[in-house]
Amino acid sequence: MRGAIKSDVKLWAVGSIGIDDIKTRTAARKNLMGGALPFSTAAASFFTKTGAVGVVGDDFPSTFERRWRAFGVDLRGVQKASGATFRWACEYDSDMVERTTLKTELGVFESFSPELPETYGRTPFVLLGNIQPKLQAHVLKQAVGAKFVALDTMNLWIQTARKELLRVIRCVDLLTLNDGEARLLTGKWNLCDCAAAILGMGPAYVVIKKGEHGSILFYGKEIFIVPAYPVRRLVDPTGAGDSYAGACMGYLARAGRVTDKLVRKSLIYASAVASVGVEGFSLERFEKANLAAIEHRVAELTRMMRP
Amino acid sequence: MRGAIKSDVKLWAVGSIGIDDIKTRTAARKNLMGGALPFSTAAASFFTKTGAVGVVGDDFPSTFERRWRAFGVDLRGVQKASGATFRWACEYDSDMVERTTLKTELGVFESFSPELPETYGRTPFVLLGNIQPKLQAHVLKQAVGAKFVALDTMNLWIQTARKELLRVIRCVDLLTLNDGEARLLTGKWNLCDCAAAILGMGPAYVVIKKGEHGSILFYGKEIFIVPAYPVRRLVDPTGAGDSYAGACMGYLARAGRVTDKLVRKSLIYASAVASVGVEGFSLERFEKANLAAIEHRVAELTRMMRP
Repeated sequence: MRGAIKSDVKLWAVGSIGIDDIKTRTAARKNLMGGALPFSTAAASFFTKTGAVGVVGDDFPSTFERRWRAFGVDLRGVQKASGATFRWACEYDSDMVERTTLKTELGVFESFSPELPETYGRTPFVLLGNIQPKLQAHVLKQAVGAKFVALDTMNLWIQTARKELLRVIRCVDLLTLNDGEARLLTGKWNLCDCAAAILGMGPAYVVIKKGEHGSILFYGKEIFIVPAYPVRRLVDPTGAGDSYAGACMGYLARAGRVTDKLVRKSLIYASAVASVGVEGFSLERFEKANLAAIEHRVAELTRMMRP
Repeated sequence: MRGAIKSDVKLWAVGSIGIDDIKTRTAARKNLMGGALPFSTAAASFFTKTGAVGVVGDDFPSTFERRWRAFGVDLRGVQKASGATFRWACEYDSDMVERTTLKTELGVFESFSPELPETYGRTPFVLLGNIQPKLQAHVLKQAVGAKFVALDTMNLWIQTARKELLRVIRCVDLLTLNDGEARLLTGKWNLCDCAAAILGMGPAYVVIKKGEHGSILFYGKEIFIVPAYPVRRLVDPTGAGDSYAGACMGYLARAGRVTDKLVRKSLIYASAVASVGVEGFSLERFEKANLAAIEHRVAELTRMMRP
């Protein structure tokens, strides 16, 4: 997708772009902009100039493109392929934690091969969203100037593409995954043991996500327990993990450097951003937010963490 | 039970005393000292002189009594009745969170009516452990000098003795219960809404427990998110909630006063104590711990909470 944005991005992310149907305990919505990439890049855009690398079909609504671009996200890396956009439908159970996938139609995503816009090769911060590890490796190879790379994954790849996944994990600096996936990846049960095993695979930082219960950052021998911001009006948890990873990387990209302290701080921001996102469907709540609103939640959350 | 201890307690707790059979994913043990009271009072005893109010049968092993008393717990309030001690058996599922009760034999607990040793009426700190709300009310009436009262409850009483429970809740300062119980008690789903409703029932403080995911303290318009200490060697989670409540109250009783700041701090200590307890069956791990070990975990946990 061509657009007016020419300035170089500080961070780019690769991931899925989809059209979602979502049913929660209180509402049902169809034809929402979804997939990991809109969430992660919109979340990152609160902090820094962010680029998106993905694919849409020729049925991708121009309103979606316009609303996405309104976050200032650079869409030059989003290919438009002939065919249908990735479609996904799910239904949440009554506790809004577990969900059942009702439909997955890969469409143009099936033959997707991510290619970086020329200047992205020099971009220092990279977020490899949850896609086939082979594709993550393929695009990472083009990122010759990357200084700090984060990777998100899921049980599907742990089960079906373990070898490729381990190869990519070896090359990244930060890995995010949820507790069940950490157990599946390592064969260990205790999360401290899982984290130790993952740190042995390559990354300097591992973030184990626990949804509404927050997440835990592990690095070296250190642990940082990141609480979730207590959401008062949960509308749709879809994309929360992607927003979380995007905000974390956006915060670090804005800082322009990575220290343990900054990573800890980035996760508080990530928690705040993710909590905003789940108060609406798709990017709707992000569209009404700004950095000041995020900072306000960060201040609140920091107070809630103080002994 | 008579003993050498004569000095006045700063805190007493009432609750069940039992003999447990427990099966976890890795081990099975029979005839363990259990019930809420041994856990809560042993946990509190790290901080202050604590009294236990409960009942045992004439089959209660003298070794249990000796080991319990070794914590410095005052057992003058533990009645010895003719009959069988309360017996309970459970099996944990593979994630060590959900458990199935295999046996509940009330024994002498069925006709238990808690009576305070004379001097306990003036004791400033009181923990009403998870027993029939009518019994909680009965014993609280005797506690004329109580300054700060905490109450623990469970779904059984919410469902079967709601009216009595609400009556006791109105008279206490701090209520602890788990997330499911908070929802059951209030009919609300969002934990912030649950807490607001409970604060409207009387208590100044409510602690919603989430097991391995820590807990959340609510008071006034404030929230304190208390992480669980990451346990590296989970052996048996039985009694963790009781230890948590006991340690919280023990810490406050030692301080001799209650402020918001002290309550926040007490819950970090509670988290540390509970994390020690679950590293062994029954009180076995507590028997090897001391305040210095607890303080060490508190320091570690505080570091893990720092942005």
